Amino acid sequence: MKAFVMLNIGQVGVVEKDRPTCGPLDAILRPTKGLICTSDVHTVHGAVGERENLTLGHEAVGVVEEVGALVANFKQGDRVAVGAITPDWGSDAAQGGHSSQSGGALGGWKFANIKDGTFAEYVHVNEADANLALIPKGVPDESAVYVCDMMSTGFMAAENAKIPIGGNVVVFAQGPVGLMCTVGARLQGAGFVIAVESVPKRQELARHFGADEVVDFTKVDVVERILELTNGEGVDAAIDALGTSQVLQQCVKVTKPGGMISNAGYHGDGEFVEIPRVEWGVGMAEKDIATGLCPGGHLRLSRLLRLLETGRIDPTPMTTHTFGFDEIEKAFRMMEKKEDGMIKPMIDFEA
Amino acid sequence: MKAFVMLNIGQVGVVEKDRPTCGPLDAILRPTKGLICTSDVHTVHGAVGERENLTLGHEAVGVVEEVGALVANFKQGDRVAVGAITPDWGSDAAQGGHSSQSGGALGGWKFANIKDGTFAEYVHVNEADANLALIPKGVPDESAVYVCDMMSTGFMAAENAKIPIGGNVVVFAQGPVGLMCTVGARLQGAGFVIAVESVPKRQELARHFGADEVVDFTKVDVVERILELTNGEGVDAAIDALGTSQVLQQCVKVTKPGGMISNAGYHGDGEFVEIPRVEWGVGMAEKDIATGLCPGGHLRLSRLLRLLETGRIDPTPMTTHTFGFDEIEKAFRMMEKKEDGMIKPMIDFEA
Amino acid sequence: MKAFVMLNIGQVGVVEKDRPTCGPLDAILRPTKGLICTSDVHTVHGAVGERENLTLGHEAVGVVEEVGALVANFKQGDRVAVGAITPDWGSDAAQGGHSSQSGGALGGWKFANIKDGTFAEYVHVNEADANLALIPKGVPDESAVYVCDMMSTGFMAAENAKIPIGGNVVVFAQGPVGLMCTVGARLQGAGFVIAVESVPKRQELARHFGADEVVDFTKVDVVERILELTNGEGVDAAIDALGTSQVLQQCVKVTKPGGMISNAGYHGDGEFVEIPRVEWGVGMAEKDIATGLCPGGHLRLSRLLRLLETGRIDPTPMTTHTFGFDEIEKAFRMMEKKEDGMIKPMIDFEA
Amino acid sequence: MKAFVMLNIGQVGVVEKDRPTCGPLDAILRPTKGLICTSDVHTVHGAVGERENLTLGHEAVGVVEEVGALVANFKQGDRVAVGAITPDWGSDAAQGGHSSQSGGALGGWKFANIKDGTFAEYVHVNEADANLALIPKGVPDESAVYVCDMMSTGFMAAENAKIPIGGNVVVFAQGPVGLMCTVGARLQGAGFVIAVESVPKRQELARHFGADEVVDFTKVDVVERILELTNGEGVDAAIDALGTSQVLQQCVKVTKPGGMISNAGYHGDGEFVEIPRVEWGVGMAEKDIATGLCPGGHLRLSRLLRLLETGRIDPTPMTTHTFGFDEIEKAFRMMEKKEDGMIKPMIDFEA
Repeated sequence: MKAFVMLNIGQVGVVEKDRPTCGPLDAILRPTKGLICTSDVHTVHGAVGERENLTLGHEAVGVVEEVGALVANFKQGDRVAVGAITPDWGSDAAQGGHSSQSGGALGGWKFANIKDGTFAEYVHVNEADANLALIPKGVPDESAVYVCDMMSTGFMAAENAKIPIGGNVVVFAQGPVGLMCTVGARLQGAGFVIAVESVPKRQELARHFGADEVVDFTKVDVVERILELTNGEGVDAAIDALGTSQVLQQCVKVTKPGGMISNAGYHGDGEFVEIPRVEWGVGMAEKDIATGLCPGGHLRLSRLLRLLETGRIDPTPMTTHTFGFDEIEKAFRMMEKKEDGMIKPMIDFEA
Repeated sequence: MKAFVMLNIGQVGVVEKDRPTCGPLDAILRPTKGLICTSDVHTVHGAVGERENLTLGHEAVGVVEEVGALVANFKQGDRVAVGAITPDWGSDAAQGGHSSQSGGALGGWKFANIKDGTFAEYVHVNEADANLALIPKGVPDESAVYVCDMMSTGFMAAENAKIPIGGNVVVFAQGPVGLMCTVGARLQGAGFVIAVESVPKRQELARHFGADEVVDFTKVDVVERILELTNGEGVDAAIDALGTSQVLQQCVKVTKPGGMISNAGYHGDGEFVEIPRVEWGVGMAEKDIATGLCPGGHLRLSRLLRLLETGRIDPTPMTTHTFGFDEIEKAFRMMEKKEDGMIKPMIDFEA
Repeated sequence: MKAFVMLNIGQVGVVEKDRPTCGPLDAILRPTKGLICTSDVHTVHGAVGERENLTLGHEAVGVVEEVGALVANFKQGDRVAVGAITPDWGSDAAQGGHSSQSGGALGGWKFANIKDGTFAEYVHVNEADANLALIPKGVPDESAVYVCDMMSTGFMAAENAKIPIGGNVVVFAQGPVGLMCTVGARLQGAGFVIAVESVPKRQELARHFGADEVVDFTKVDVVERILELTNGEGVDAAIDALGTSQVLQQCVKVTKPGGMISNAGYHGDGEFVEIPRVEWGVGMAEKDIATGLCPGGHLRLSRLLRLLETGRIDPTPMTTHTFGFDEIEKAFRMMEKKEDGMIKPMIDFEA
Repeated sequence: MKAFVMLNIGQVGVVEKDRPTCGPLDAILRPTKGLICTSDVHTVHGAVGERENLTLGHEAVGVVEEVGALVANFKQGDRVAVGAITPDWGSDAAQGGHSSQSGGALGGWKFANIKDGTFAEYVHVNEADANLALIPKGVPDESAVYVCDMMSTGFMAAENAKIPIGGNVVVFAQGPVGLMCTVGARLQGAGFVIAVESVPKRQELARHFGADEVVDFTKVDVVERILELTNGEGVDAAIDALGTSQVLQQCVKVTKPGGMISNAGYHGDGEFVEIPRVEWGVGMAEKDIATGLCPGGHLRLSRLLRLLETGRIDPTPMTTHTFGFDEIEKAFRMMEKKEDGMIKPMIDFEA
């Protein structure tokens, strides 16, 4: 079968691979739609270290091709979503409520990290009963594919932010995860959502997805402006959807004592992420910092799919570009540079 | 001054009273708009016991007429909302996070219970700095008056229901509190909201405020229907917005193991509220029961007012009737019987 | 192999059965020590309905005899504990944090309910990696066997009670689960623990395990006495370790507004469990009711075993009697009537 | 009256001051016992900026000398404890559950920060009903004085650590706050408590107060050793009771994914507190960071006093030295250098 792989650091290409085999608890999925993620770009550039011929991709929906002997709830032909994170549900981490950390830090993240990802004609899914979800009739694949990572990650950050109903929230960066944080903040009852973003198309989407106010950090002092917008008090919760030490610092500075800082970004640079000591209240201002990795699993996916089914959200305005699987390398190269206002490029395996 | 009072059980009328005096921490409020609550009806019919010449009413917005010497944040002329519940914020209950219970069970409920209520030309407010909130420009009194009780109570029930994002929720009864539970469920991220109601006008409002499905208990077996709507699994959370043993039983029956039952209703009848033993999983199915009383206070009111300011909700479709203060007895009598499709009658003190 | 079974309602006996077979995720355990539980008595008397030749027992430690091909963390010869509850960890219930409810209400409870229990020469364990735990050196089987149910259930009730550090707690009934609730309350930081019990031996054990005060309900009005002991305020948390409507009512009556009622008892009688309406604050006093079923799983068992390893608790004073496996019917008959001051009878499979 | 003050940065002395006056909500306290805190030393050395003639001290018990007209629950002659933190209970921060942040970051901290402290013959207490607690008969002043700050702060850190029952915990630094973190970890059900400390007397007290293992960071690599003690997994919770960037980094490194880092230390140096990026799981390992400031208030103090009353803890072994009020400058100078193995010096105002 064909697979789009990281050949080694910096290099990608489509190669021929053996079709994965299906263990007793597993399923083999034939993808129909996929999304390229900025994490794929990070991975290719070395974020998780050396990899050779690793199939990329972790956002996919498709059709079940085969299930293992112990799989009870899915069968060939089912139209399903699979999470970007596919935990080992019996692990201590999952038993303790941290399924994304099963098998060690970030260990639930298997696709395109510790095993082949979803940009291939066939995809192996571990613990299929627990990690797949049926896509409801009426929810098209183009929409469902957003539950795998974007919606799950963005909403998680909003949940971790413990937003009081009617509270003030700021979301730093309005890339696809940030936009879903904005939606998540609305779904958690935020009374006033500030989005920080400078790119016009993303500012526009931020407003579309529910931001009450957009702050352009290239034009104003973002900390000052957020304090001004909150009568000098600061926000109840600040979400870092970028993942830089500088943004986390700004989060600490704009959060009121007793508020939450919630991280959704991949912190890729530097030895340290720095907390500004004084604005953090010398460690005593009850500005807590929560982190997380995209929750996966049947229950989570099913609930997110329900939000699509009942029309709470339509994520498809984020799909700025669509490509056939044969054009995936081109799509990836555009994603590297976010060319042409790209937000999420969809790969249509059926095109 | 004129006050609309419970003369004694079953009897009401407008009487002349002395204007309340203002202690050092207090404020005197001149109401502009008020709402009659079903609780006022309960009170008059004896729910809290004998009362004589007790001024009724606990939902009001108005203008500050006078403040005590120790009041720092409000001044004469401020346009404010006051909570139905006005806690003693230094009490143990408030320190422990249960401000509505300050001074004993339901002790934060003072208006028209242990002191004169808001249906008078002047109203006394205890701990004014902590129990008043400025109404933002752009939020009319007609809308703001809903934060005092309806929104705070309804949203509380949704918060107590611990709704998972995308979860299934049912709200029993779509009176004004139930309708605000429906809105609250949406604001907490519910993926599918079922409203139980038989009155057409209320069914219509339930849909307007966000119910995905309305179940008419006079036409179908409500438990069966809710299980059917949730693939036999039951809901993640059930809210009792009526307050009868029968509804609470239905809540227990339709809630999945591990789900929440949240009470917003005043349970006014019978020696016991009955939990169905078997469907409650013989006390082991993790179907927990949460209760609460309308949260009050400056912080809560301010956050609810923000939801009005940013247009998250417009509660005014619940105002089915408006009366001048001179017509309040008529309004009350109609509310007793919910005549003419009455949902919330507004009292306009300025008419 | 020999197995001690419920022949049918009311009848028990030792029969010959086939040794269980080991699926790919399973283990076969050879028990060394077991405990008889009051639930076994309930089961035999019909609590879960008709059963035929069902092996009894759900509290056991032993030696791994065989593991399935997909079991990674255990091998023949390992000395292990298995939980009374052995969840399906991939189920929606487990993914949502309610593993004991996997597969439906109380569905994690498989032993001596929906499959053969632990009173046999060989015992089948599902999802062995997730449901077994190694017993640390230095922790004898006689002690370890208490983690399977008694400690896990009792401590769960204390955790669900959300005891504030230094808070007041009452535990109704000081059978083995109640005693472990008392220990659990201490381990959760309770400042004052009241135990309700009338049997002298159990009163003595209550004090041994940390009760500050014992109230004998046969001699005083238990509600009055508890209020008196708490300056009329009531407790922060009340735990029902018996499981009767009457005790739950008392729990509601002695709990302060804003406090918790936590259930650990099996409610076996009546159509309803009754909440006293007025003392429950007409559904508004924030006296919430939490329930649960013994948490199982590797993580839970390991943590409980650690408490034994570091000497936080020695549960063995609850073992009032010891029997060989050949005497198990006699032991069971004594347990039915709690003869001779029996609290927990231990079955020594190696005697 | 006499008061021990910070004359200006670096200088202290006993001066004559006017007795404080008592507002309507206040009380005047005559201290009987007090403790010097390392924070007093920090303050004198400039930690909160310039101060002139500011009375030092925030840990005191004593006798009520006078109460304001609106004080309901205390009277002259009552033996009471007052919290180091005396919040404004009506503030938004307190209403939102963050009383120590009332009036801004750390705003509940008034004594020896924004008003005169407790090392004087008479002490002013704001919101007396809410900020004082009666000391039970049988609890001596010498013991009660530890509830004001040491116990409240140390236990808070343990509560914020969300320790699972039976979990692994490490407490960095065993000064008086760290020792109370160790006790707090035990009171929250920790199964294994590791204390990090190099000073022999403090190591000994750590063991006395419940540490299972003491790690001397001057002799071993503390991170390696803690991982070794936890089978390479790391702890469920790590508490920083020192307050340096280095210790916080070690906390992150030794905490398992999904675990908590809880801060109890005053972070006094550097522009940033640094989180080690990789060991923090690039912001995705669910290693959350919680902070807090000593909870105050009647409810908190009463519960801590109950722990003394029922003998759960005896903090007095921390009192290594006792001085009369006339020797306070000497005591302070010794505390600056922790001379003679000083842990907590008690000031006896009645000596």
